[in-house]
Amino acid sequence: MEISEISKKLLDAKEEKGFTFADLAKKVNRSEIWTAALLYGQAQATKEEAQTLCAALGVGKDAEKFMTAFADKGLGPVVPTDPLIYRLYEIVQVYGYPFKSLVHEKFGDGIMSAVDFDMEVDCVKDPKGDRVKWTMTGKFLPYKKW
Amino acid sequence: MEISEISKKLLDAKEEKGFTFADLAKKVNRSEIWTAALLYGQAQATKEEAQTLCAALGVGKDAEKFMTAFADKGLGPVVPTDPLIYRLYEIVQVYGYPFKSLVHEKFGDGIMSAVDFDMEVDCVKDPKGDRVKWTMTGKFLPYKKW
Amino acid sequence: MEISEISKKLLDAKEEKGFTFADLAKKVNRSEIWTAALLYGQAQATKEEAQTLCAALGVGKDAEKFMTAFADKGLGPVVPTDPLIYRLYEIVQVYGYPFKSLVHEKFGDGIMSAVDFDMEVDCVKDPKGDRVKWTMTGKFLPYKKW
Amino acid sequence: MEISEISKKLLDAKEEKGFTFADLAKKVNRSEIWTAALLYGQAQATKEEAQTLCAALGVGKDAEKFMTAFADKGLGPVVPTDPLIYRLYEIVQVYGYPFKSLVHEKFGDGIMSAVDFDMEVDCVKDPKGDRVKWTMTGKFLPYKKW
Amino acid sequence: MEISEISKKLLDAKEEKGFTFADLAKKVNRSEIWTAALLYGQAQATKEEAQTLCAALGVGKDAEKFMTAFADKGLGPVVPTDPLIYRLYEIVQVYGYPFKSLVHEKFGDGIMSAVDFDMEVDCVKDPKGDRVKWTMTGKFLPYKKW
Amino acid sequence: MEISEISKKLLDAKEEKGFTFADLAKKVNRSEIWTAALLYGQAQATKEEAQTLCAALGVGKDAEKFMTAFADKGLGPVVPTDPLIYRLYEIVQVYGYPFKSLVHEKFGDGIMSAVDFDMEVDCVKDPKGDRVKWTMTGKFLPYKKW
Amino acid sequence: MEISEISKKLLDAKEEKGFTFADLAKKVNRSEIWTAALLYGQAQATKEEAQTLCAALGVGKDAEKFMTAFADKGLGPVVPTDPLIYRLYEIVQVYGYPFKSLVHEKFGDGIMSAVDFDMEVDCVKDPKGDRVKWTMTGKFLPYKKW
Amino acid sequence: MEISEISKKLLDAKEEKGFTFADLAKKVNRSEIWTAALLYGQAQATKEEAQTLCAALGVGKDAEKFMTAFADKGLGPVVPTDPLIYRLYEIVQVYGYPFKSLVHEKFGDGIMSAVDFDMEVDCVKDPKGDRVKWTMTGKFLPYKKW
Amino acid sequence: MEISEISKKLLDAKEEKGFTFADLAKKVNRSEIWTAALLYGQAQATKEEAQTLCAALGVGKDAEKFMTAFADKGLGPVVPTDPLIYRLYEIVQVYGYPFKSLVHEKFGDGIMSAVDFDMEVDCVKDPKGDRVKWTMTGKFLPYKKW
Amino acid sequence: MEISEISKKLLDAKEEKGFTFADLAKKVNRSEIWTAALLYGQAQATKEEAQTLCAALGVGKDAEKFMTAFADKGLGPVVPTDPLIYRLYEIVQVYGYPFKSLVHEKFGDGIMSAVDFDMEVDCVKDPKGDRVKWTMTGKFLPYKKW
Repeated sequence: MEISEISKKLLDAKEEKGFTFADLAKKVNRSEIWTAALLYGQAQATKEEAQTLCAALGVGKDAEKFMTAFADKGLGPVVPTDPLIYRLYEIVQVYGYPFKSLVHEKFGDGIMSAVDFDMEVDCVKDPKGDRVKWTMTGKFLPYKKW
Repeated sequence: MEISEISKKLLDAKEEKGFTFADLAKKVNRSEIWTAALLYGQAQATKEEAQTLCAALGVGKDAEKFMTAFADKGLGPVVPTDPLIYRLYEIVQVYGYPFKSLVHEKFGDGIMSAVDFDMEVDCVKDPKGDRVKWTMTGKFLPYKKW
Repeated sequence: MEISEISKKLLDAKEEKGFTFADLAKKVNRSEIWTAALLYGQAQATKEEAQTLCAALGVGKDAEKFMTAFADKGLGPVVPTDPLIYRLYEIVQVYGYPFKSLVHEKFGDGIMSAVDFDMEVDCVKDPKGDRVKWTMTGKFLPYKKW
Repeated sequence: MEISEISKKLLDAKEEKGFTFADLAKKVNRSEIWTAALLYGQAQATKEEAQTLCAALGVGKDAEKFMTAFADKGLGPVVPTDPLIYRLYEIVQVYGYPFKSLVHEKFGDGIMSAVDFDMEVDCVKDPKGDRVKWTMTGKFLPYKKW
Repeated sequence: MEISEISKKLLDAKEEKGFTFADLAKKVNRSEIWTAALLYGQAQATKEEAQTLCAALGVGKDAEKFMTAFADKGLGPVVPTDPLIYRLYEIVQVYGYPFKSLVHEKFGDGIMSAVDFDMEVDCVKDPKGDRVKWTMTGKFLPYKKW
Repeated sequence: MEISEISKKLLDAKEEKGFTFADLAKKVNRSEIWTAALLYGQAQATKEEAQTLCAALGVGKDAEKFMTAFADKGLGPVVPTDPLIYRLYEIVQVYGYPFKSLVHEKFGDGIMSAVDFDMEVDCVKDPKGDRVKWTMTGKFLPYKKW
Repeated sequence: MEISEISKKLLDAKEEKGFTFADLAKKVNRSEIWTAALLYGQAQATKEEAQTLCAALGVGKDAEKFMTAFADKGLGPVVPTDPLIYRLYEIVQVYGYPFKSLVHEKFGDGIMSAVDFDMEVDCVKDPKGDRVKWTMTGKFLPYKKW
Repeated sequence: MEISEISKKLLDAKEEKGFTFADLAKKVNRSEIWTAALLYGQAQATKEEAQTLCAALGVGKDAEKFMTAFADKGLGPVVPTDPLIYRLYEIVQVYGYPFKSLVHEKFGDGIMSAVDFDMEVDCVKDPKGDRVKWTMTGKFLPYKKW
Repeated sequence: MEISEISKKLLDAKEEKGFTFADLAKKVNRSEIWTAALLYGQAQATKEEAQTLCAALGVGKDAEKFMTAFADKGLGPVVPTDPLIYRLYEIVQVYGYPFKSLVHEKFGDGIMSAVDFDMEVDCVKDPKGDRVKWTMTGKFLPYKKW
Repeated sequence: MEISEISKKLLDAKEEKGFTFADLAKKVNRSEIWTAALLYGQAQATKEEAQTLCAALGVGKDAEKFMTAFADKGLGPVVPTDPLIYRLYEIVQVYGYPFKSLVHEKFGDGIMSAVDFDMEVDCVKDPKGDRVKWTMTGKFLPYKKW
């Protein structure tokens, strides 16, 4: 799936208005990353949230509809080609099984939800070079037995 | 690539000895996830670290060699089929571009290193169901211009 | 991933002993399909359940260990080639989006859990030809907003 | 294959008119999911059914033609990227062989038809969180021997 | 999936005993192609049929078990590389849609069953070069509406 | 490759004029399936045949050119997603090697031509449900030795 | 498909005995390339040819059987990784359509047979560097109309 | 990559003007196949050659630019679906390794260049059916050692 | 991902103005290859650099915006089909592991950065034929242990 | 293709003997990377070179044969999963087209040979972190016109 035209329009509007994701997030009392996900059509806003954001961005009805619709989620190629996004894929390739082992040890057989889930991206100042801090919490869901 | 026989032997030894990853990690003063990655052949130990761990696990020379070798990294199929590991892939699919946008906004054009990088997995107690907390920091690397 | 040797041994033992999945399921007070999933290494039993089943099947320690281990889940090729399993894949291809639309209409933006989940397979007698009845319930998980 | 423009128009019209799938289904005396499948071009209506639905949705001749045409069925990528639809694919990956084993045990060598087939999606109220109930019946077709 | 060792053994035994598929087929009162499919593990015999064929081929219990088991069907790569089998795939690629159009015109929306199905392969003498005649009949299954 | 716009126009014209493939085939003294293949751009007509058919269908010069051009053949995805066409693919997957064995036994090392080739689709009345009869003959081509 | 063990044994025997393909070819009055194809299991010899070659190579019954069997043809990955074989694939990628256009112009709609087909590989001396000459002739097969 | 619009225009112009590739080739003193490759954007003409051909074909500046540009080479799907082009791919699959063995025997470790390379397509009259003759010569390039 | 329309426009403008990449590079005091990467949307310029280049190329605001945007990097198919770019891929296939071994020997476990990275392409005059010289330096990044 | 057993044996022998690639390279008067490629079966040694290296490594006849054989070249998965080798692939993805443009500008239509080709890997000391220097020269090969 490709980034939609309406997403590109929203990102352009944000750029032109000079908003950060934090600016937009504050208007609807949400986090930066959720707000970014919304602009990419990967999250769903209430009507009020959509109206607030569309007003701020100066975009019309179609954008409001896009934000409140339920999306066909998932973006980009099977193996990401963009170097930044590929690094995330590489982390899954290299640390996926170690992660699974640790979750199993601490929680038992189950998964970390990617739906009852939140995520933050922060900048950690470091004299040797700033670091990106990526934090997620997802509810542990044990496999049901029946 | 598949999980190697030697990895399976190490994980079995850990199971039989009743060690947690934390137990093993403490012996070499490393984190749980790095230690787990080592057992999967995705990290490289010093000779001393390898000897300490192999002694604790009661495994022989080939395990020591495996831990100190430089590995052919990356595990599992292109799109993970294991539900727990797939959820991580799904996060990359759904939140990859929002993540990229935010990193760009906060840091400029560049990537989060997956090499100068660390990661923790914790359990966050929650009355509505415990949560898996997954935290990473990776050095931000700006694209060089020349 | 291929069906493991230990799974084949368990299925052969079941065949030779003349057990149905219902027979085995009754011994551990579980459903037929969960018990079948266990033999394929797609579910995890308690030690007691594993011991009961292994005794009944006349198989040894390695089978018991297999049943209590946490598995690397997911079986077979990306697109199933077996005609029976392909039909299930076809249902996802043909009815996936209609299903998604209906879940969205009835529940909102979220998913049906494949983890907090159960499933039954029954035979419905029909003079025009018996029918396979396949029933699942999975917890609805709404997308968290944060 | 991608969701067609005409499907999107029909889904938009449904949204704007405020119909549920149940509302539309009742007009033609069909089930919700069949009606949803029809709007996605995955089923075929009679001329009368198509006229009734198009009148209700306020759409024109092209929509009527679309509903009565025989479609090129199957939608979306080989491995679904949408988290909700992926969960269905995951069920096939994890429970496909157990399902096959059980069908074989109960019916013999054959398949569950995905053509002489019906399906329902219901909401099961549950204090711990509502559950999606997905029920299918498909005619068992034994392999012919000749 | 690859051709199994047991299949190769059966085909070798047939070769060494000098049987044609017609010879074997006659012993169990089946067609040549069904008998060939059985040796490749793509069909399922009754115990009596299996015993008759195994006795004729001079093969043991494991072959009998193989013939009566329910197989994981489907053989060879996604796109066949063998020139003879590729030609069949090519026919599907080139004539698939014309075939679909014609079935639709003659029968309505539905499929030709590949399960309630039979097939013959014959040699048609022709002075310009003999021709392979490939005939199939499969039950037409109309899409159920519900 | 996707079905071309010009093919869709021809199929629509046929639909609107109320022609069956048999009606069109008769006008040029060809078979139904060859005529269907022609409309999908998978066969090549003479100028006279094209003119006759285009006149009957009430379509213009571009359609005539399309029918007389040499096409880039092969239609649809690598593994068909349409259930009807998939069944044909499944037949190749399940019966490909048995078919090859039988051809080899009857003809020697070689192939059935998919070029010096013809095909018919018929309806066989059956009280238990009508059957689709699919018949092909292709010239046997022995591998040349040199 | 991978190069079989028996092929490797035959190629090793040829190496050790110091035969060129021309030496072997002469013994059975065939061309070099056909003989090479035979050793790779891509052609089929008569019993006499096989016996002559196996005697020369000093290999046993299994090699003779391999040479007279009908093979599952096609070798190596979908896109060749070996640089020499990739160059042939590249020629198909770059010159495939120009080749098709020219065949069409000279012969009409049809194909060059890869079965009623022969091929030679020669060395053309050239002061600027010797050249590989690759010549094939394949029977032109016009598409049948019916 | 798909055949470009400008290629289609050039091929149409050639068709309408009634030129063969040989006619066009003679105008610029090149071979038929190189000229065909040029029209498909797989070769690069000098300005003079392009002007001569564009004048003959009655096409404009954009065609001239297309012929003198350096192209992004390679056309069609990974595995060709067109039967004629597939036959060439099949030759690589079946005869690739035999070809490699022979080149190695005659020239040593290296490749046949696909760049310092030429190719001819001829019609060989034959009472049993005309044959396509396909001849290539490519410079042998030995692997450099350093 | 495909080469964007705006990239094609920039490359056309460069062609028409008769600039080399060196000419453009000098205007912004950058290297040729970085400047080429910028025109392909694979690097990011400052506002000043973009204005200088766009003025020189005579292109408008959209080009300036394209040059200063953060791109979705990575171009072309998974396995390159263009012969020149394929050769680079082949080098990775053939020399990737030897390269890894050498880096490991000289630097330890880690990677060569593709971000803190520069690259030059030069022509080395040689009487036997000029040579392309491709030089890269990338910072060595050792795997962090934690 | 996977790294062969014999390659692993050679790399182990090198490790145990404490040789660097430079040590081995000096013995046969070759470069480090060519010597590394030889151990991975991606280059071909003379008999003398092979004997010298095998003596030094203390390995037997099979290793000597491996080094002098002509290899089936190309190693690892289609898209590399190892992070170090992936970075090289990423360079091709990101800088492939800019590289092509520059080669074209400087040399005309053609390729950089990956066969008449050499490569060096060096360590460049740098106070901000050492850098990997990767240098290649490959003969420019202009497309022949004929």
